[in-house]
Amino acid sequence: MRTGALRSKMAVVAIAIVMAASIIGVPRAAADEGMWTFDNPPLKQLKERYGFTPTKEWLDHIRLSSVRFNDGGSGSWIGAEGLVLTNHHVARGQLQKISTPQKDYAKDGFYARTQAEELKSPDLELNVLMSTEEVTSRVESAVKPGMDEKKALDARKSEIAKIEKESLDATGLRSEVIPLYNGGEYWLYRYKKYTDVRLVFAPEQQIAFYGGDPDNFTYPRYDLDIAIFRVYENGKPVHNDHYLRWNPKGPADGDLVFVSGNPGSTDRLDTVAQLETLRDYAYPMTLKAEKRRLEVLNRYSSLGAEQAREAANLKFGIENAFKAQTGENEGLNSKAIFTKKEKEEQEFRARIDKDPKLKAEYGDAWSQISAAEKKLVANYKTLRFRSISRSFASLPGEALTIVRYVAEVKKPDGERLDGFHDAELESLQFELFSPAPKYPALDEKLLADSLQESLEQLGPNDPFIKAALNGKSPADAAAEIMKGTKLGDAAFRKSLIEGGEQAVAASTDPLVVFARRIDPLLREQRKWLEDNVISIETSAGEKIGKARFAVYGKSAYPDATFTLRLSYGTVKGYPMNGTIAPSRTTIYGLYDRAQSFDNKAPFDLPERYEKGKDRLTLSTPLDFVSTADIIGGNSGSPVIDRNGDFVGIIFDGNIESLVGRFVYDEGANRAVAVDSAVITHALRALYDAGPLADEIEGKMASAVK
Amino acid sequence: MRTGALRSKMAVVAIAIVMAASIIGVPRAAADEGMWTFDNPPLKQLKERYGFTPTKEWLDHIRLSSVRFNDGGSGSWIGAEGLVLTNHHVARGQLQKISTPQKDYAKDGFYARTQAEELKSPDLELNVLMSTEEVTSRVESAVKPGMDEKKALDARKSEIAKIEKESLDATGLRSEVIPLYNGGEYWLYRYKKYTDVRLVFAPEQQIAFYGGDPDNFTYPRYDLDIAIFRVYENGKPVHNDHYLRWNPKGPADGDLVFVSGNPGSTDRLDTVAQLETLRDYAYPMTLKAEKRRLEVLNRYSSLGAEQAREAANLKFGIENAFKAQTGENEGLNSKAIFTKKEKEEQEFRARIDKDPKLKAEYGDAWSQISAAEKKLVANYKTLRFRSISRSFASLPGEALTIVRYVAEVKKPDGERLDGFHDAELESLQFELFSPAPKYPALDEKLLADSLQESLEQLGPNDPFIKAALNGKSPADAAAEIMKGTKLGDAAFRKSLIEGGEQAVAASTDPLVVFARRIDPLLREQRKWLEDNVISIETSAGEKIGKARFAVYGKSAYPDATFTLRLSYGTVKGYPMNGTIAPSRTTIYGLYDRAQSFDNKAPFDLPERYEKGKDRLTLSTPLDFVSTADIIGGNSGSPVIDRNGDFVGIIFDGNIESLVGRFVYDEGANRAVAVDSAVITHALRALYDAGPLADEIEGKMASAVK
Repeated sequence: MRTGALRSKMAVVAIAIVMAASIIGVPRAAADEGMWTFDNPPLKQLKERYGFTPTKEWLDHIRLSSVRFNDGGSGSWIGAEGLVLTNHHVARGQLQKISTPQKDYAKDGFYARTQAEELKSPDLELNVLMSTEEVTSRVESAVKPGMDEKKALDARKSEIAKIEKESLDATGLRSEVIPLYNGGEYWLYRYKKYTDVRLVFAPEQQIAFYGGDPDNFTYPRYDLDIAIFRVYENGKPVHNDHYLRWNPKGPADGDLVFVSGNPGSTDRLDTVAQLETLRDYAYPMTLKAEKRRLEVLNRYSSLGAEQAREAANLKFGIENAFKAQTGENEGLNSKAIFTKKEKEEQEFRARIDKDPKLKAEYGDAWSQISAAEKKLVANYKTLRFRSISRSFASLPGEALTIVRYVAEVKKPDGERLDGFHDAELESLQFELFSPAPKYPALDEKLLADSLQESLEQLGPNDPFIKAALNGKSPADAAAEIMKGTKLGDAAFRKSLIEGGEQAVAASTDPLVVFARRIDPLLREQRKWLEDNVISIETSAGEKIGKARFAVYGKSAYPDATFTLRLSYGTVKGYPMNGTIAPSRTTIYGLYDRAQSFDNKAPFDLPERYEKGKDRLTLSTPLDFVSTADIIGGNSGSPVIDRNGDFVGIIFDGNIESLVGRFVYDEGANRAVAVDSAVITHALRALYDAGPLADEIEGKMASAVK
Repeated sequence: MRTGALRSKMAVVAIAIVMAASIIGVPRAAADEGMWTFDNPPLKQLKERYGFTPTKEWLDHIRLSSVRFNDGGSGSWIGAEGLVLTNHHVARGQLQKISTPQKDYAKDGFYARTQAEELKSPDLELNVLMSTEEVTSRVESAVKPGMDEKKALDARKSEIAKIEKESLDATGLRSEVIPLYNGGEYWLYRYKKYTDVRLVFAPEQQIAFYGGDPDNFTYPRYDLDIAIFRVYENGKPVHNDHYLRWNPKGPADGDLVFVSGNPGSTDRLDTVAQLETLRDYAYPMTLKAEKRRLEVLNRYSSLGAEQAREAANLKFGIENAFKAQTGENEGLNSKAIFTKKEKEEQEFRARIDKDPKLKAEYGDAWSQISAAEKKLVANYKTLRFRSISRSFASLPGEALTIVRYVAEVKKPDGERLDGFHDAELESLQFELFSPAPKYPALDEKLLADSLQESLEQLGPNDPFIKAALNGKSPADAAAEIMKGTKLGDAAFRKSLIEGGEQAVAASTDPLVVFARRIDPLLREQRKWLEDNVISIETSAGEKIGKARFAVYGKSAYPDATFTLRLSYGTVKGYPMNGTIAPSRTTIYGLYDRAQSFDNKAPFDLPERYEKGKDRLTLSTPLDFVSTADIIGGNSGSPVIDRNGDFVGIIFDGNIESLVGRFVYDEGANRAVAVDSAVITHALRALYDAGPLADEIEGKMASAVK
C-alpha cells in the first residue's frame, strides 16, 4: 500500500509539484479520523469514544518503540536485543539489494539461525524520534516586514537550515524542521539514526504479498507481510529499553487499537484550486507515465529470469503506486467527494470573511493560491516532461545528485538547494555510496522510454530535449549514456564527490556529462517553480493554517509529512459489496483462496505452505482491519492495544481507503494488518524458527547472544 | 435470490401492476446473455462462442429432467426413483408447513433413512414441461377488426381459456397459454404435474442459508442450499427415464455450463415510460411497504420462540425481496443504465419510423403505452393502497379467493377473472384445501399494519378504507376479523367452496364478511386497470413485439415468464471490489468466514459442522459462479455440463446481477450455485447419508426400494 517505496524516486515530481501544492488549513477531526502528532494527541476523542486517556509515559514508550524506515516505511522495536519488525514490502528494496543472480532473498525469504548468519543491509537507515520542539516563531521571525514571497521563502529556508545544523551540532541527532498544519506551525524533529541493520527473517514473497497486484489494496486479505531485522551499534545488537511487548493473541473484534507510524503525505487540506490541478493534470499524467514504464519493465522482465529479478522491486513499486493513485484519482473524480470539498472550503471562507480582522489578515490566501495554480497549470506540461525523475531509473538520478552536490556544498548552508544542507549530507552520502548492486541495462530502458515520452510531449526543439538527446534518438541517447557509465561503481561515485567540482567538471563519464547538460535547465525550472508557485503557496498556506487555528482552534491534525503520527480506531468489519467484511481473516481463508484459484499465480502458495499445512492451526487469525486512519508510509507500523502491547503490523489499506488521501470515511476506510498471533505461530510451525518466536514473545531474550 | 417465494402473495400488486406493465419488444442477445425458450435455443451463440451444438435429444433430455416448483422455484430429477433436487430456500415454505412448535424442520433439517420416514409436503405441486405449441394465430384471430382494446383483451382472454381447457381435456396435462416476446407470440405449454412430493433430505437452515441476509445476493458464498424430495405417483416412487446423471467432480474453471429453470420475471423489454413508473412509483412504494412489514415480523418474532418460528419463512421472503428490489431500484436510478435504455429505445424507434409500412403498423405503440402509463401513474397511490395483498397475510388473501371463486365459476369460462378458468381450478383447489398450518395471530398483525398504511395514504374517507375498517381502527378491525375467523381450518374453506355462492353469502365468519365488503371495490379497480392500462398495453406490446421481429428477426429471447428457459455461460470469476472473485469457493472458506466472525450469527456454523470438521476434505469445492443469465425463480435450477450431466444447483445471483432485471452485464453478472462435489461429500461425511449419496451418484439405484 505504501507509496513510500517510491518516495525517493518520485521525489522530484511528487515533492516539487504535487506536494508543494498541498499547503493548507486544518479541518476538525470527527470519528476515528486523524494522523496525530505526539505533541497533540486526540485526548478528547479517546476519552469520549473509548474512555481511554494515554499517560505521558504511555505516549513516550510508543514513540520510542516506533521506527522510521528511511527508504519509505515504518516499523517497531519488538525485542530488547535490537529486533525491529517491518513489512516484507518495506524491506523489499533491501532484500533485492542483498540478493544476487544466484540467490533471490526477496522471492525466497531468509532466516538467520544465528546472529552470525544475519545479512547486513547495504543502505538502510532507521530513525527513532527522540524529541520534538516547536520553532514556529523562530522560522517566522526570519521573514521581515516588506519581504516579497520569494525573499520570504529564501529567508525561511535559510533559517530552517540553520536550526537543523545547530541541532545536529549540539545533539548529534538527525535534525529536521517540519512544517505542520501547512506552515501554521514549524517543528524541529530530532532522530537517533541507525545504519547497521541486519536481516534476520523474511518469508517468501508469495506469502508476504499473497494475491499480488489484484489483492493489493483490498480486503479480505491473507498476507504474512513481515520482515525482521536486528539493529547493531558498534558491532553489537542495540539494547533498547523501549520495545513493544508481544501480545500473542492479537486483538479481538471491537478492540481499541493504535497505529504509530510515518504516513507519507495526504492532501486533505488542499484548496479546491489545488485539488483541481491534481485531478485534471497531476493524476492523468502520472498514471500515463507509470503505465508506460510498467510496459518497459514487463518487456525487460520477459528477457529472462535475471532480468525479471532485477525489475521485480521497481515493478512492484510502480504497480503499487498505479493502483493507489487510480483509486485516489477516482475519489477526486467523484462528484460527491469533490462537492464535499468545495462546501467545506466555502464554509471556512465564509467564517473568515465574516470577521473583518480575520478577513484582512487571511482572506486573500485562497485567491493567491488560485493565481499560483493558474501559472502552474499553464506550464504544467513543460515542468512535468522536462525531467528524468519520471523515468524511475536509478543511476541518472544519482548522476544529477552528484553534479549538484559538488556545486551546492560550496555555497553557504542557507542558500543551498533543499537536500544538500549540512544536516542532510551524512544520510545523503550513506545513500550515494551504497554498495548495493545497480542495473544499468534496466536503467537504460527506463531512461529511453522517459526521454521518448518527453520528446513526444515537448517536441524536438525544446531546450531540455536538445540538451538531453544531443541530436540522437531517445533510444540511442540512453544507450550511449548508460552503456559507457562507471557510475554503477560506488567507489567511482565516491571519487567524484570527494574530487569535488573539479572532478565532476573533468569527468568524461557519459552519464555525468548528460547530467551536466541538463542540470542548468532543471535548476532554472526549479527556480521558476519556487518563485511563481512554491513561495506564493507557502505564504498563503501559512495564512490559511493560521486562519484555521483562529476559527477552529488546534482541535485537529496536520496533513501527513512522513513523520511520526498516532492514529487510533476500532477493530471492526465493514459493509462490502452487498454484505459484511469481517474484522479478521484466518489461515483457513488463505487455503480457500489458493484452492479457489486452482493454486494459480498470484494466488499460489509457497511450497512450504502446501507441505506444512497440517502443522498449522488453521483457525489462527491472519489479517485484521481497523478504522485507524493511515496512508502510504504507514506500512510496517505497529498496531498497539490499550496496554501498549503489539497486536499487529499494518501493511495495507482497503480499496475504500484510497480516497483517504482527500477524505476519511469511518464507514468503509480500513487499515489492514497482520495479526500478531499468526506471526509467532508461522515462525514456529512452518519456518522452524522457534527461537526467534521465543525472543519476540520475550521468552528467552537472554538466550539470544 | 428468488422472488418466487413471494410470487403468490405479491401476485396482485406484482402481476396486476408491475408485470402488466412489462410488455415490450426484444433486443438482440450478446455475450452469454439470455433466458431462451427450448423451441428457440441460442444455437448460433453456442456454436460461435463454445463450438457446441446441442442435439434435439440433448435438449429434450434437459427439458424433461427439469422441474418447476409451483410455489416459486426450479429443480431437477436426479435419480431414477423419483428423486428431485431443489434449494432449501425453495423448499423452505414446505419445510415450515410440515413443522410444528415441537419440531422445526426448516431450522434443523431432516433426513429420511427409509422411504417410510419421508415426510409428505402438504401443498407442493411440481410441473414438468411435456410439450409446447405455438398458438399465436389462434389467439390473434380471436381479435376481430374494429374491436377496441377492451373488447380485444376480452376476446384474447376468452380464446386463451378455451385453448387451455381443450388441451386439458384432450391430454389431462396442466395447460397454460403464455404470451412470449410480450405478445409477439403466444404458446401453449403442457405440464405433467405431481402433487405427492415427500421430503427426503434437508440440511440445517444455518448451512443452507449460511451468512443469512447479509450474504444473500452476494459472492463469495459458502452455502449448502439444497433439499431433496422424492416424488410419488399412486403411492410409488416415480420411475423416470429422464433424470440428470451426477458429475461427482463439479465443473472446472472455464467450463461451459447450462442452466435449465424457470426465471420468474424480467423487465428488459419495458419501454422507457414503463421503467419510469417502476423507478418513480412501484419500487419506492414497494420497498417502503416491505420495510414496515419487516418491522411487524420482527416485533412478532420477539414475542417468543414459537412466534419467531411462525414468522421465519415470510421474514426470509420479504428480506430477500427487499434486498433484491433495492438492487434493482439502484439499477434504475443509475444514470448509465437508464441512459442505455433510452438510447436502445431511440434506436429501435428510429428504425421503425424509417420504414413507412412499419411506422404505419407499429409506430404509435410507444405513445399509446406512455399515455396508459400516465393514467396509471395518476391513480397509482389509490391502486396501490386499495389492496390487502401488500399485507403479506395469508388468510385474508384466501378469503378473497374464496369469495371470488364461488362467483366466478358460475360464469362462462372465457369471461372469468384470471386465475379461475377451468384449467386452473384443480391446482387452485390443491392450494386452497392445503392442510398446512395457518398463523392467524401473525396474519392479524400484518393485516393491521397494512390497513394502517392504507389509512395513512388514502385518508379515512376513502371508500376502500370505509369498507375495510367499518368504522374501527386498523388494529381493532384486524383483531376482530382475524380472531373470530375459522378460515384457518381447511375443512371450513372446503365447505365454503363446496357450498358455493349461497354458503359464502350466508357466512358470518368475520374474515369472509370482510372479504365480501372489499371485493366489489377491488373488482371495480381491477376493471379500471384492465380497461385503461392492461388492454392498451397488451395491444401496444404486441405491436412492439412484432416490430422487433420485423427489425431484428427472432434472434433473441423473450422476457422471463416463470416458464422453462435455457441459459448458458462459463464458470468464471470476475472483478470485485478492487480484486478478483474466484470462480469457486471451498469448504476452507466456510470455516474461515465462521471463525472470522467469532462464529456469531448469521455466520455461525451448525453444531454438526463444528464437530464433524475432521471428516471433511476442506478443499472440496463448495459454491461456484458462472456467467449464465438467471433471475428469481431460477433458484434450484440444475447447472449442467456439455454432457448433460449435473454439476451444480443455482441458488443465488451476486449483488452485481440484481440490475439483471433490466440489463445483463457479462462483466460482473454471475449466477451462484452449489457444487455437485460438496453435496455427496457432505451427505456422506456429515449427515451419515451414504445411501442417499450413492443413489444420487447412480451407484445403487436398484438398492433403493
